Amino acid sequence: MKLATKALNGNRYALARIISLVEDDGANARSALANLYPHTGQAHIVGVTGAPGTGKSTLVNQLAKFLRTQDITVGVVAVDPSSPFTGGALLGDRVRMRDLAGDPGVFIRSMASRGSLGGLARATSDVVKVLDAVGFAVVLIETVGAGQAEVEIARTAHTTIVIEAPGMGDEVQALKAGLMEIADVLVVNKADRPGAANTARALEMVIDRNSTRGEESEDAWIPSILQTIALDGAGVPAMWEMVAAHREYLRSTGLWTEKERARIETEMLNILQNELLDQLLARVGEEQMETWIGRIAARDVDVYTAVRAILEGEK
Amino acid sequence: MKLATKALNGNRYALARIISLVEDDGANARSALANLYPHTGQAHIVGVTGAPGTGKSTLVNQLAKFLRTQDITVGVVAVDPSSPFTGGALLGDRVRMRDLAGDPGVFIRSMASRGSLGGLARATSDVVKVLDAVGFAVVLIETVGAGQAEVEIARTAHTTIVIEAPGMGDEVQALKAGLMEIADVLVVNKADRPGAANTARALEMVIDRNSTRGEESEDAWIPSILQTIALDGAGVPAMWEMVAAHREYLRSTGLWTEKERARIETEMLNILQNELLDQLLARVGEEQMETWIGRIAARDVDVYTAVRAILEGEK
Repeated sequence: MKLATKALNGNRYALARIISLVEDDGANARSALANLYPHTGQAHIVGVTGAPGTGKSTLVNQLAKFLRTQDITVGVVAVDPSSPFTGGALLGDRVRMRDLAGDPGVFIRSMASRGSLGGLARATSDVVKVLDAVGFAVVLIETVGAGQAEVEIARTAHTTIVIEAPGMGDEVQALKAGLMEIADVLVVNKADRPGAANTARALEMVIDRNSTRGEESEDAWIPSILQTIALDGAGVPAMWEMVAAHREYLRSTGLWTEKERARIETEMLNILQNELLDQLLARVGEEQMETWIGRIAARDVDVYTAVRAILEGEK
Repeated sequence: MKLATKALNGNRYALARIISLVEDDGANARSALANLYPHTGQAHIVGVTGAPGTGKSTLVNQLAKFLRTQDITVGVVAVDPSSPFTGGALLGDRVRMRDLAGDPGVFIRSMASRGSLGGLARATSDVVKVLDAVGFAVVLIETVGAGQAEVEIARTAHTTIVIEAPGMGDEVQALKAGLMEIADVLVVNKADRPGAANTARALEMVIDRNSTRGEESEDAWIPSILQTIALDGAGVPAMWEMVAAHREYLRSTGLWTEKERARIETEMLNILQNELLDQLLARVGEEQMETWIGRIAARDVDVYTAVRAILEGEK
């Protein structure tokens, strides 16, 4: 039996194997993905992002636990663009889900960067598709950092939760990281710490400013601000309620489909771009590329002129 | 007279104009860049990065001021991948350099994201080239976030300063963000705050672990940990001394050239990739692309199969 069929039938080993193939980006993953793809489109994909130190991992853990009490199946993809060495393993992230182990209604995978950022985004998207296809009702994508790359990965979700925490510096961190505008649900975690109310107020002000600039239509979604304490799970059910409400909003307005088309377009262009470059490099050859790099390094030619020459030479 | 010639002759208006052209990514910038490029290669390019709230902007400001007291000219490129709305302007970053205004030995430019991340990285690299060509001895690239994208932008520098601050959460932030391995100089800013010594010790431990894994050659550069107080400039001269020492290290080991070739290669591949995609889209046409997106959205075909078909159709 094919790996994909096994995974669709609930075989846990086959699922893990396909995900490993996807991570290795092998051609073997392609046929499994093609077989699984018709089964996708059901999962609610939820991105969770925020600056380091806001308690994202713990909150994701609590949300997964809460979903299980509701009998909702959940996949978690923790995306960590840092290296194996500096990655979550060092900080104990990898063991944080211990209390969910053994539950077949949960699947957790940490994704670390292997080379390019684009590769990580692609692999993440494919792993989400696999989890969607085999029937996880909710897929959480947790991004460890708070940079643009993480924003772009979170953006592939239907709903994005942005997490903030009080007392992490002088300003609202999410603002600096440009996370505000992708937030569908805003959470001030560590709400038992001093300054939580101030942080919530600061976020409120930004949302108000955003929504009074006249750019929003009447039925626009305005993110609510919720407070949570991830350590004991306080506020997590209310947070989920808001996430579920956002799903309904997307469904009823047709934005669900619109978002999906945008995601597909981005993904298709990224894959096309990589394939085109690979094909070109195979034709031009390493030696000639090295020659061009040498000429640019010698200031004999600038990079744009070199690129034009390479592409002209192709014709 | 050509804009590039004017800029090379010290015309400030021409310089600002070229940088605007580069930011707009117009074809007009290409000829100016080609004319300027032979004059590049002299500047010491220094990346400054770290999590939000560490005081990067203030430290960059102090470093620029210190360099001016040493009669060293300095260009500053502040890269902010967040939107205009959530960007530095709101937080007062844009005015922070006020006390350097009017000094022709300083040039400061904030770069905000306009669309893609790749576009920002490319524009940043080109602005650095322009500043290098017209003779700024040091070019500081400050990245506002701490994600992988910022890391990649900082990586284009000869020397990377990673900034940490005490009391920003439970762990060393730079660790989580994967910044440690790109650090040539590690700075604990806000050294007058409680916990600074702890933060420095934590960093020290990581460096020790790194350098005793046997992967380092005998003459490897091991980053030192420095403490600064950006608000009053304490520690800034020592920080600069370390940055200058790193430059000497790169020069004497030949790594300067090696780094440059790696940077050129990455840049050339990125530009090639974009050009190839643009050419393909021009040939395939929007209508056909929309059809493919529709088929993928309908789960009629998966994205990899679609990409293969598009590329086959080209032959």
